[in-house]
Amino acid sequence: ASMKYYYLVLVLVALASAPLATVAGDPDILTDFVIPNMYGIAPMNITGDFFTYTGFRVTNETMPWPRRSLIAIKANMEAFPALNGQSVSYTKLVFPSECVNPPHTHPRAAELLVVLNGALSVGFVDTTGKLYTQDLSAGDMFVFPKGLVHYQYNLGQSPAIALSAFGSAAPGTVNVPASVFGTGIDNVVLTKSFKTDFWTVQKLKPHSPEMA
Amino acid sequence: ASMKYYYLVLVLVALASAPLATVAGDPDILTDFVIPNMYGIAPMNITGDFFTYTGFRVTNETMPWPRRSLIAIKANMEAFPALNGQSVSYTKLVFPSECVNPPHTHPRAAELLVVLNGALSVGFVDTTGKLYTQDLSAGDMFVFPKGLVHYQYNLGQSPAIALSAFGSAAPGTVNVPASVFGTGIDNVVLTKSFKTDFWTVQKLKPHSPEMA
Amino acid sequence: ASMKYYYLVLVLVALASAPLATVAGDPDILTDFVIPNMYGIAPMNITGDFFTYTGFRVTNETMPWPRRSLIAIKANMEAFPALNGQSVSYTKLVFPSECVNPPHTHPRAAELLVVLNGALSVGFVDTTGKLYTQDLSAGDMFVFPKGLVHYQYNLGQSPAIALSAFGSAAPGTVNVPASVFGTGIDNVVLTKSFKTDFWTVQKLKPHSPEMA
Amino acid sequence: ASMKYYYLVLVLVALASAPLATVAGDPDILTDFVIPNMYGIAPMNITGDFFTYTGFRVTNETMPWPRRSLIAIKANMEAFPALNGQSVSYTKLVFPSECVNPPHTHPRAAELLVVLNGALSVGFVDTTGKLYTQDLSAGDMFVFPKGLVHYQYNLGQSPAIALSAFGSAAPGTVNVPASVFGTGIDNVVLTKSFKTDFWTVQKLKPHSPEMA
Amino acid sequence: ASMKYYYLVLVLVALASAPLATVAGDPDILTDFVIPNMYGIAPMNITGDFFTYTGFRVTNETMPWPRRSLIAIKANMEAFPALNGQSVSYTKLVFPSECVNPPHTHPRAAELLVVLNGALSVGFVDTTGKLYTQDLSAGDMFVFPKGLVHYQYNLGQSPAIALSAFGSAAPGTVNVPASVFGTGIDNVVLTKSFKTDFWTVQKLKPHSPEMA
Amino acid sequence: ASMKYYYLVLVLVALASAPLATVAGDPDILTDFVIPNMYGIAPMNITGDFFTYTGFRVTNETMPWPRRSLIAIKANMEAFPALNGQSVSYTKLVFPSECVNPPHTHPRAAELLVVLNGALSVGFVDTTGKLYTQDLSAGDMFVFPKGLVHYQYNLGQSPAIALSAFGSAAPGTVNVPASVFGTGIDNVVLTKSFKTDFWTVQKLKPHSPEMA
Repeated sequence: ASMKYYYLVLVLVALASAPLATVAGDPDILTDFVIPNMYGIAPMNITGDFFTYTGFRVTNETMPWPRRSLIAIKANMEAFPALNGQSVSYTKLVFPSECVNPPHTHPRAAELLVVLNGALSVGFVDTTGKLYTQDLSAGDMFVFPKGLVHYQYNLGQSPAIALSAFGSAAPGTVNVPASVFGTGIDNVVLTKSFKTDFWTVQKLKPHSPEMA
Repeated sequence: ASMKYYYLVLVLVALASAPLATVAGDPDILTDFVIPNMYGIAPMNITGDFFTYTGFRVTNETMPWPRRSLIAIKANMEAFPALNGQSVSYTKLVFPSECVNPPHTHPRAAELLVVLNGALSVGFVDTTGKLYTQDLSAGDMFVFPKGLVHYQYNLGQSPAIALSAFGSAAPGTVNVPASVFGTGIDNVVLTKSFKTDFWTVQKLKPHSPEMA
Repeated sequence: ASMKYYYLVLVLVALASAPLATVAGDPDILTDFVIPNMYGIAPMNITGDFFTYTGFRVTNETMPWPRRSLIAIKANMEAFPALNGQSVSYTKLVFPSECVNPPHTHPRAAELLVVLNGALSVGFVDTTGKLYTQDLSAGDMFVFPKGLVHYQYNLGQSPAIALSAFGSAAPGTVNVPASVFGTGIDNVVLTKSFKTDFWTVQKLKPHSPEMA
Repeated sequence: ASMKYYYLVLVLVALASAPLATVAGDPDILTDFVIPNMYGIAPMNITGDFFTYTGFRVTNETMPWPRRSLIAIKANMEAFPALNGQSVSYTKLVFPSECVNPPHTHPRAAELLVVLNGALSVGFVDTTGKLYTQDLSAGDMFVFPKGLVHYQYNLGQSPAIALSAFGSAAPGTVNVPASVFGTGIDNVVLTKSFKTDFWTVQKLKPHSPEMA
Repeated sequence: ASMKYYYLVLVLVALASAPLATVAGDPDILTDFVIPNMYGIAPMNITGDFFTYTGFRVTNETMPWPRRSLIAIKANMEAFPALNGQSVSYTKLVFPSECVNPPHTHPRAAELLVVLNGALSVGFVDTTGKLYTQDLSAGDMFVFPKGLVHYQYNLGQSPAIALSAFGSAAPGTVNVPASVFGTGIDNVVLTKSFKTDFWTVQKLKPHSPEMA
Repeated sequence: ASMKYYYLVLVLVALASAPLATVAGDPDILTDFVIPNMYGIAPMNITGDFFTYTGFRVTNETMPWPRRSLIAIKANMEAFPALNGQSVSYTKLVFPSECVNPPHTHPRAAELLVVLNGALSVGFVDTTGKLYTQDLSAGDMFVFPKGLVHYQYNLGQSPAIALSAFGSAAPGTVNVPASVFGTGIDNVVLTKSFKTDFWTVQKLKPHSPEMA
């Protein structure tokens, strides 16, 4: 039980150490680019490095293998400040065999996923409750419309790698199992919401401290 | 078990009978208002009736009482076409005693809820997994930020009535229990996502035909 | 004559004591919510209270009655900072018998009004000069499209209470009589604009110091 | 009295004969330009003429002179369909001596006015009720912020000509005297709103048929 | 000389055969997704296939090799209608050895490029005339801000493959050499603009019929 | 050769001395107007002067004549801070005889040009490579759609003056000859992009220090 939600740890660490952004929108940009105050870079000292992100290099070389949990590396405004005002970002997803990216939503953008290696089964549910699914091979693309619940699953025996683009510099992620069962929502609310009993709800809660 | 998700039936019926809107956005309006084509009303025949919605009258007078499930009456662009282009809409919520509005999100708008009668316990989870809760009395207001998972719960013995405003004419609703357990997502995906077993997932699925 | 525009005092006091907001827009939010700098709250200390507004409680209990002038309590970004970036706000309107909310516009949002108690006669004028009117009962809803001149009037003998939602966190209000006759616009401009004489314009100007 | 609001006739005629636009916004354009359906032009037959507007030529040469009323020629999306999606438009204003453009608002855009000939006194009122004024000479520019009540006045003995740009292809105009006193709003509403008597309101209403 | 601008042929063919989109913006979507009219698909018949794009499969397997010109496969709203309203799209770029993607702009979006294979030298120029450059290896990412002139160049001996995401479903491309020298702009305008002579301008014009 | 790109000097000086704007968008304004921090003006001290721009006065009186190069005076957010949030700006263009405004784009807005004096030949190229041209007389208007390459040329013997409005407070300008040949892009990239030889590229580069 202590492994529950372990796959989220990598991402949450990055979030916890980032400063709170107090910007309020994802608008059309009024200038060619935005120099974040927190970097203290004088505009004349900005070079091509400011517009470059190398965080995806780490994935293949340095990570110990085999792994059992999903790796999600986010190239969003927090990790790559040059994206501020440009309304676009990426996440690289590495799925070990039989690994699932659990149902989640992105509150601020649609997701456009391309499978780079391996194969993925994907699906999303629209606001009328209809499920749309697809089996994707390497090279295939799938769009998860803005704000809807969706998942990806690597059915295969080899790892799958995907690249997802978002139409926002800060799309955000709402992980459904973690948000609903890992955040302390009252047991009565959960029992009534899922029309189930206390023991079933308890079984769905993570017992490890990772989600504290 | 056949009562599972019964509270959703009223809303889904309304959705199923509505024409598919093919509009693409919630922009600033270029004209004072938009006359929908499907109504076939010549512009010179438009009167104040077009800008009036009386669907909320029904709630108190005509509904049989006592009830056990949530009533949600939506005054959105589908029900009230004059909202097209105006970026605002309402939902009226009637909570019988001990009734919960299960965890859900609105993909296209924040929700600003005012308690008109009774009391509600509410909460939402942000994208870092932190839960924010509040106990609201009649007259109190609470904002659920855009796209985040939230719920409302009437702890009291008398019904509670709330009015929720949205900053979109078509905010949409993604009901978490129904989207995740009521739409046919593969059992393996669900089992792995919730880090549980097959029997627990089965218990969470609605057995009634209402959510087919 | 000293009572002229008295109904505006309550609202204007609130505006005058608020800091000048230097934000520039009502965009899609890049983060789940925005912590205003002026509050000096560290993000980890934010609780559900930040998302709660109780300013509407005051209306019914604490106000002396009978009254003769309109009460407008605004739950906008100034009064309720959690609305920043959420593109939605409320105003609660209490109309004594025979009280009118004079012709006005909201520069930044449409208004969606619901009558909670009593009855209201309402109307707006579009940019071609056509007037749209309606008589509303408790429970009825009316939309005043963005930026157009509109009014509400309580014809009845009992007070009327309405709740208005706006698709902006800061819709703004331009009161026509006060803006045109209460701000010092040159008499010649007013005389020519209204194609009338000096004495008529003088009669329309407030003589009391409330509108200074 | 039959001359009242005569200056609006030219503009209203143009509006009345235009088809009702059913577009819903002023968004960023997804294509280089938009071919209106009503024109029935095949895309390959579009030439530079589609992007050209010559309606401003008429002002100086063909209009009989002297005149007493304001001339406003609008190069907006209705008159110049190529502006659809481009979020910009113009109005040319010709002020005879001592002519005023009465208090009005534009619901969908700020106005950026340049004086081409002569001189103008201008002003606007913000949402706190503060009046800002300026005397402009030829070559001077003034910005009237979005949605606020403003006016222009030619104090001089020679005509004044101005060009106003708007950040919307369809900014709209709400003329305050015409909207409030020329549209049939109930006398009681007007009397109470302006805190005056029945006879004063009657005097402010246009008696001519032009504003019917 | 007949090879000039040959690299553009593949892309232009695709554009020429597409119907002219008459949509006007890239706004936040009001519905979960948009069914294009031209497809004549009843909403209940939409499946996961509608949200899937397989056009990138062709790149590696079916193209004859070696090649000398750039291949650009666009997964934008024209090629993949499900992107309508989702504000995101992709282009896959295959660079043979020593191949350049000439200076160009995207009028409606920033470009976020990831190198999948090989290496690229890239650069862009801001509106003050400053050039920013970078040498990218496989896995590296670079953002070209919205609307600015930029290029990519494969200096290496092996092919390079890149994936570019855009924050618009229809970013558009303005190829500088083709737009300026391949479209019939008057020789005098070009000679004066580039401060050069007639013969130099002639040398820069493509002589082949591909750019007619 | 030392005169190359001389026409750009006036504009670039203005840009170089301006502080870097760190605003991120051109959104609908949340307040009536925005007081820039750098001005240190207390809100109560703002007068009509803040909304007034007199930079266009200089054009006719103080500039020595005859001139040979284009004069472009920009009334954008940098020069006229009151435009912040108002989504509109102007540029005044003075063309000596036979002077050309070379091919350029505005990354953030369409341009709506009115000829005030003289005559201009203008053109733009859409993203399919089609050129649209027009000959304009005084009083004529032409729209250059957002983000597309366009030029203006004064064929006549007398100066031409034009006023251009933009649907953004900071439209930006990308001058094609200066961006491509005056910024240090590698010779190999340029030679391959224009499918020409080293000497032709060298001839197109400015030799003067003005574009450093």
